[in-house]
Amino acid sequence: MVIGGGFGGLKVARRLARRRDVQITLIDRVNHHLFQPLLYQVGTGILTGGQIAPALRDLFVGRENVRVLLAEVTAIDVDARTVTAVAGGTLTLAYDTLVVAAGARDTYFGHDEWERDAPGMKSLDDAYRIRTRILSAFELAETAQDDAERAAWLTFVLVGAGPTGVELAGQIAYLARHTLAGHYRRVRSEDARIVLLDAASSVLPSFRERLQRRTAQELTRAGVEIRVGTTATRIDAHGLDLTTPDGDARIDAHTVLWTAGVEAAPLARNLAQATGAQTDRAGRLHVATDLTIQGHPDVFAIGDMVTIEGVPGVAQAALQEGAFVADLIARRLDSNTTPPTPTPATALRYRDKGSMAIVGRSWAVADVRGLQLTGRVAWVIWAAVHIAFLVDWQKRAEIIRRWFWEFVTQDRHERVISYVSLLPDELARAEVETVRRRTARKSRR
Amino acid sequence: MVIGGGFGGLKVARRLARRRDVQITLIDRVNHHLFQPLLYQVGTGILTGGQIAPALRDLFVGRENVRVLLAEVTAIDVDARTVTAVAGGTLTLAYDTLVVAAGARDTYFGHDEWERDAPGMKSLDDAYRIRTRILSAFELAETAQDDAERAAWLTFVLVGAGPTGVELAGQIAYLARHTLAGHYRRVRSEDARIVLLDAASSVLPSFRERLQRRTAQELTRAGVEIRVGTTATRIDAHGLDLTTPDGDARIDAHTVLWTAGVEAAPLARNLAQATGAQTDRAGRLHVATDLTIQGHPDVFAIGDMVTIEGVPGVAQAALQEGAFVADLIARRLDSNTTPPTPTPATALRYRDKGSMAIVGRSWAVADVRGLQLTGRVAWVIWAAVHIAFLVDWQKRAEIIRRWFWEFVTQDRHERVISYVSLLPDELARAEVETVRRRTARKSRR
Repeated sequence: MVIGGGFGGLKVARRLARRRDVQITLIDRVNHHLFQPLLYQVGTGILTGGQIAPALRDLFVGRENVRVLLAEVTAIDVDARTVTAVAGGTLTLAYDTLVVAAGARDTYFGHDEWERDAPGMKSLDDAYRIRTRILSAFELAETAQDDAERAAWLTFVLVGAGPTGVELAGQIAYLARHTLAGHYRRVRSEDARIVLLDAASSVLPSFRERLQRRTAQELTRAGVEIRVGTTATRIDAHGLDLTTPDGDARIDAHTVLWTAGVEAAPLARNLAQATGAQTDRAGRLHVATDLTIQGHPDVFAIGDMVTIEGVPGVAQAALQEGAFVADLIARRLDSNTTPPTPTPATALRYRDKGSMAIVGRSWAVADVRGLQLTGRVAWVIWAAVHIAFLVDWQKRAEIIRRWFWEFVTQDRHERVISYVSLLPDELARAEVETVRRRTARKSRR
Repeated sequence: MVIGGGFGGLKVARRLARRRDVQITLIDRVNHHLFQPLLYQVGTGILTGGQIAPALRDLFVGRENVRVLLAEVTAIDVDARTVTAVAGGTLTLAYDTLVVAAGARDTYFGHDEWERDAPGMKSLDDAYRIRTRILSAFELAETAQDDAERAAWLTFVLVGAGPTGVELAGQIAYLARHTLAGHYRRVRSEDARIVLLDAASSVLPSFRERLQRRTAQELTRAGVEIRVGTTATRIDAHGLDLTTPDGDARIDAHTVLWTAGVEAAPLARNLAQATGAQTDRAGRLHVATDLTIQGHPDVFAIGDMVTIEGVPGVAQAALQEGAFVADLIARRLDSNTTPPTPTPATALRYRDKGSMAIVGRSWAVADVRGLQLTGRVAWVIWAAVHIAFLVDWQKRAEIIRRWFWEFVTQDRHERVISYVSLLPDELARAEVETVRRRTARKSRR
């Protein structure tokens, strides 16, 4: 059984699905695999949700040994070897081997009240929310009735200058300077102020110094204002309070986006309690070198919800861990054994294939096995790698066409403001719960 | 000033925009023009919102004499010649000539409580909601724990067999029989029961008898169960109570969609109160033969919010009315007069260009100037007409490609279940109101 259809979980399921002797149940809270590296393009109107999120079920048509369930796992009983999940009703599902790959979610470092005014971007619903916020801000600037109000609507602040923050900042700058130029009468979208801040001393803190410097230059050229060494101390509907190297400051902004940090999905804590495993500060599980939970050789945990020395929380790591676990399970099945303790021979060897980030339309940084690239060349590699890792051919073709079109015309298709998308996820969760109760068999009422 | 960016309002604005001597303000509650005839394809996962809904602003780039405002009109003062609209704050806008084209919305004939369990499809948010409902139903059937529950999730009821009901029924049947076939393990999507009901004695009540009969045959062949002469007397989360020619009946269904009837937008009542104009049972305004409000030669009303003898509430009528009004305004400007009373020479002459509806993938009915067509031929005409009326070339090309792809592979791209989309519009309206209050200038707090 695999919990989670992200990069890690999907890899395990697809790799093991080829074997006729394996019955796989893949459980996810959502019905799609999300190609997260391109999520920011959904958030800024280039791509649609469907283009980067194939239905999980679609990927296993014809694989009769794979069962995909849309359900939320609420408990894991490692002694009884069962998983409890809620769909329309509550399901109890038995497993022989369990792979938990539930991923990560945004963390507000103890300030959950900031979520309302500074939404993060982890899911498609998040991306639609951010798209509606960004596009609405320009509209509200156009109808604002005084200068201060107009300026607050034209100010966009990104808290966190990792790859997502850099990419979103570059995209918003591009939207303002190019895509939306000439669209408004009372305001010039080109006057938008885009502020990218980070507590670290540079943008892209995990990258090498030269690439950091070049990225900062390119962002500045694109019109992004960078503030490093800067921490948000309060976020509300009107803007945010900051602690900066030059003292305290305030930015009036109606659009603040959270790109600062992630923590493990809540299921990690669940699993830690059930197994006695340790977690780190971000709630990520410590796992054995073979990615099992210590003392539970039939329970694996992979991806963003675990912490492994020297392995970053990125898609390629989840993919490698997924492949590793699938192969390990296959070997166990072939040799008909369950090794009680991991050996060096069964340890994951992580190969860093490099990291990349994109600024604006056709400028990227890439650090690929020691090779530090910037600009158009890096962008071509970026585009090739991202297209290559998409799961289906038709989506690849359509995304290439959209990129090409956007490149030529600077136009973006997906500019629909959806008010419903503004609503917070907790309301959606409450609604799903209400639907569940209301549609439960009448006999049970 | 034009209120509403649907077919009618957009036509007026685009036609008058060519004149340098006209200043146009186009106000809409949403930021896009919606190509409603293809909305059902968004609702069933073929197209994306962006493909059928260009941003209104995009259509007037370079037209400095056109101002597009995202705002909701709340009052019209015909004496002061002002319109009150709410955006971030409240705006008061003056006009010389006013064209009100606010459209229609679903009506539940006094049973507004049904909206929750039987959503309608007028907006993009509605279409996303319906898409999520339909796709979730199959998922919940897969995880249902008893047969009755499973059957209720696999039963889809459409209340109202006009073009939208027929098109949606055909699409759900196609999804179940083809697109989703083989995707589930515990259920067969092909077993889904799709019921199309109408109080009238036939499907497509506004079409001619031969086309009604052929459509009913085709729907039946596609797997749709037709129940005519049937009225819903109660709708809840578990299904609906019916009055049928054979007595009362009950259908257990978790997915009920409302395709039954529309009424004029609330602004029609507003305008009626302000001007003393009469409205019909569906709240639609009676207008003079030149489409002005009687006694108010500078206030026009067009499209689905008005009722004109012999003119149906369809897109082509709104387009013709928009063109007529734009030309009339242009003539007035040229002759520098405001004719006090309409004359026969200034009366709208409606030309019925025919009506069409589509069933499933490549079968349509068309009644074009006396020519009654069915099947593949009608479908080709349907496709050509719809493509021709789309507003931009790139969207045309992408839609054709998607149709072609779907035709060849039976696959559909847009299958993302978005829980947020399930939330009702009134919550979204409340959220927009909250955002408005929270982001209002601090000084005003």
